[in-house]
Amino acid sequence: MLADQQLLRIPGPSPIPPSVTRAMSKPMIGHRANETKQLLQSIKPRLKPIFGTMQDVLLIAGSGTAGLEAAVVNTVMPGDEVLVIVTGAFGERFSKICLEYNITVHELEVEWGEAVKPEALKQALHEHPNVSVVFSTYCETSTGVLNPIDQLAKAVHEYSNALIVVDGVSCVAGVETKMDEWGIDVLVTGSQKAFMLPGGLTLIAASDRAWKVIEANQQPSFYFDLKKYRSSSEEDSTPFTPATSLLFGLEQVLNLFDEEGLEQVYARHQLMMNMTRSAFRAHDIPLLTNDQSASPTVTAVRPADFAAEDLRKVIKNEFGLSIAGGQQHLKGEIFRIGHMGYCSPSEVLQTIGIIELGMVKIGKGIDLGKGVKAAQEIYLQQGDLS
Amino acid sequence: MLADQQLLRIPGPSPIPPSVTRAMSKPMIGHRANETKQLLQSIKPRLKPIFGTMQDVLLIAGSGTAGLEAAVVNTVMPGDEVLVIVTGAFGERFSKICLEYNITVHELEVEWGEAVKPEALKQALHEHPNVSVVFSTYCETSTGVLNPIDQLAKAVHEYSNALIVVDGVSCVAGVETKMDEWGIDVLVTGSQKAFMLPGGLTLIAASDRAWKVIEANQQPSFYFDLKKYRSSSEEDSTPFTPATSLLFGLEQVLNLFDEEGLEQVYARHQLMMNMTRSAFRAHDIPLLTNDQSASPTVTAVRPADFAAEDLRKVIKNEFGLSIAGGQQHLKGEIFRIGHMGYCSPSEVLQTIGIIELGMVKIGKGIDLGKGVKAAQEIYLQQGDLS
Repeated sequence: MLADQQLLRIPGPSPIPPSVTRAMSKPMIGHRANETKQLLQSIKPRLKPIFGTMQDVLLIAGSGTAGLEAAVVNTVMPGDEVLVIVTGAFGERFSKICLEYNITVHELEVEWGEAVKPEALKQALHEHPNVSVVFSTYCETSTGVLNPIDQLAKAVHEYSNALIVVDGVSCVAGVETKMDEWGIDVLVTGSQKAFMLPGGLTLIAASDRAWKVIEANQQPSFYFDLKKYRSSSEEDSTPFTPATSLLFGLEQVLNLFDEEGLEQVYARHQLMMNMTRSAFRAHDIPLLTNDQSASPTVTAVRPADFAAEDLRKVIKNEFGLSIAGGQQHLKGEIFRIGHMGYCSPSEVLQTIGIIELGMVKIGKGIDLGKGVKAAQEIYLQQGDLS
Repeated sequence: MLADQQLLRIPGPSPIPPSVTRAMSKPMIGHRANETKQLLQSIKPRLKPIFGTMQDVLLIAGSGTAGLEAAVVNTVMPGDEVLVIVTGAFGERFSKICLEYNITVHELEVEWGEAVKPEALKQALHEHPNVSVVFSTYCETSTGVLNPIDQLAKAVHEYSNALIVVDGVSCVAGVETKMDEWGIDVLVTGSQKAFMLPGGLTLIAASDRAWKVIEANQQPSFYFDLKKYRSSSEEDSTPFTPATSLLFGLEQVLNLFDEEGLEQVYARHQLMMNMTRSAFRAHDIPLLTNDQSASPTVTAVRPADFAAEDLRKVIKNEFGLSIAGGQQHLKGEIFRIGHMGYCSPSEVLQTIGIIELGMVKIGKGIDLGKGVKAAQEIYLQQGDLS
């Protein structure tokens, strides 16, 4: 195996572009110095179109889960009733955080691999008329499902007075997101997925409606108190020492988005999804999700006649290619390919080519190249990203 | 001014060593991959001597304040009584966090610039016999005071059953720390000071006595739940996506500590303190703290006959040298020089030389070179760090 080559195609953390690595290598600056202010001034306005909001996008040093917890502790109080849409492992995380805070949790469970239907949400809101917040994942990383957040937000506002809080960790910046237009009240994402950065930064924005709730909220919280982050953001600052190297990197990520154009970034993710799906279809290998529910950032494959873990092992050992396995009851049942962030159609062709070789190696008889060809054909049909 | 030159001599964030920057530039790896496990295995044992503990040192993605809040929410419950030793702005932060959680806070206030005396602590413990936790800063960044934590911990255990929780953010890894021997129950530090890393990682360890309290504690907390970090650490993992680039950097920081030797790292900080203090003494410019209370990582100077802010401005503009001003009521009254982490006696000479020039520029008549000479003499007397 080529020394030092690692191909990271898990659904996050995702690879870091070289220019972002270089940006993160800038000498350290004072966190209260003018350089930090300028850095935040450069970053702030360019996050808004990615979230699709006019609100400030706030930056917290921490994992994505820190952002999810911030969303919870700023919007609900012990004893409140909430509805959590669970389409996989990350939906469950919202429930766990809420239960930790003695929130009454109603779960709307959907079979893993399927998206939630707006009708099911309407029904759940009807059954639980007192919920103050609805929590949903946008892309469910554990299944590769993209929930129809626009329709879910619409249903929430049509059938209740609840807020809708959305975990966009594994898709925001890879999938078009219109927080304001769709009526998302709180949107959270992380740095290590479509944002092409290492982990350690979580990004969060709230609607005017959500800010009213946040301002009135009495749940104790210091580090996660969003009001502190908002006041600091208004002065182009942070309430606590920021993860400065990640901010250096984030500025360069935004330069790369500007250069490519956000529309093209989203089109590229869509194309990578279509190429990946077509490759497995060509081999008659089942996908976990249907086309309507599929996320442009991650594809889950559920092989019927070979072991997902055997495939993962052989491609990791022979080619340094990392893809993810399944979580919880899907462990061993599926494998998941991340195609987000610093990833292009070229990488998809490479990934498919390696997976085909891996399948042969583990004894799954396939026509070599058939998946690659299918992906290439999709590229020729849809792939004008210039 | 030399283009691109910035000399960062604030009391954190501190400069990053080039080899650490290079380490942080490694390609991203999966957070559940074997590479991450190996990285944590390499890091874990080498953090223990820095904390002076046999306990696992846990790593949380977040600012130092995240670590302080984790210390609070894992050890106290609403209604508990605690004693907070306030020797400056960061002592106050503990109070603010506790008050947010409806903890009854008694403050032992000490004039800014002075260390707390163990006798004063004994008296306070006598007055408040029901406190369950005593919070103290080790180095108070806002004044450059190093509190006598060994004696404070001793007093706490002699006169009460309380835990002692210590904020070591601005000195651990620059000052010898014997958590187990001294009886510190919870010790917190951050990445951006003597650890020579960017901000975004907080490190925390707890004694057996503290773990009993933590295990019984019912305060809701998800991201800051130390039990989650402990179980993950036992498996060389993290409960949430780590700040991987900071872990890459931390491993190299530990290599650098190994190369220099921890004893020598501490001696270097001591020497830098002595050099810095002697320079201002030579010019009859008052220091904020006395010798017994001075921290090896940061020196606060309280000029009697020139404006601290004028000096800061001119040395920043002409030489790119950043030093810190005062906080709260010491704003404009003092300036603070960081000499920690990636900083050597050579940098101290440079810093003093520039500050002397700056004083002349703002009209403070001094004998140029006199402070540098005093620092050089200290180096010749004490400076054999080889």
